[in-house]
Amino acid sequence: MSKININEKFSLFDEQWTPKVIAQANGQLVKIAKGTGELVWHKHDNEDELFIVFKGQLTLQLKSGDIVLNPGEMYVVPKGVEHCPKALPDTHFLMIEPEDTAHTGENISEVTVASTDQVWI
Amino acid sequence: MSKININEKFSLFDEQWTPKVIAQANGQLVKIAKGTGELVWHKHDNEDELFIVFKGQLTLQLKSGDIVLNPGEMYVVPKGVEHCPKALPDTHFLMIEPEDTAHTGENISEVTVASTDQVWI
Repeated sequence: MSKININEKFSLFDEQWTPKVIAQANGQLVKIAKGTGELVWHKHDNEDELFIVFKGQLTLQLKSGDIVLNPGEMYVVPKGVEHCPKALPDTHFLMIEPEDTAHTGENISEVTVASTDQVWI
Repeated sequence: MSKININEKFSLFDEQWTPKVIAQANGQLVKIAKGTGELVWHKHDNEDELFIVFKGQLTLQLKSGDIVLNPGEMYVVPKGVEHCPKALPDTHFLMIEPEDTAHTGENISEVTVASTDQVWI
């Protein structure tokens, strides 16, 4: 494989809340996504979900309170914890999660992108 | 857990080539380290090792050639691939790897930091 320039990868797409896969390691996928506004409340029963923000601001709304992430900040949503991401316009973030993680967990809606539709870029 | 500011974490230590653990997700540890000069050649038979550079320049010397990583760049060294990291002075980087990954793989030397000695910060 070649090295990956994370910002270059962000320049390759414009869709919101549509994760793109950029790397794989030990059964985990590294994904990047852009977000604006709010996604949906959901949880992942068996997978922790790691977020790192690169641009903008991502708020992980949890039942216990909001986690507000600015560039260079990171958070792990533990398995089973309900969360609803919301983002300032054109927020860029990276996620690491197991290969079979469902996009919006148990909450399948019109914004859901199936794991099989999450393309490599 | 609280959110993690990655640059703040880098400010908490000065040791070189001494990974500090900052998060855990799905059996993987997120570690940060500073490096200057060269580590040692080694490989991890069962673990891929993901690197993201935050400051400076990290070169992953491989038998097939050098991978030169600047800030914002990433690479996954696949399991079994021999590598020797070298870094410009005060290079900052992040690694993600399984909990039981040996620091310098099969090559135990005076620079090796046992997994059990890799502290959380």
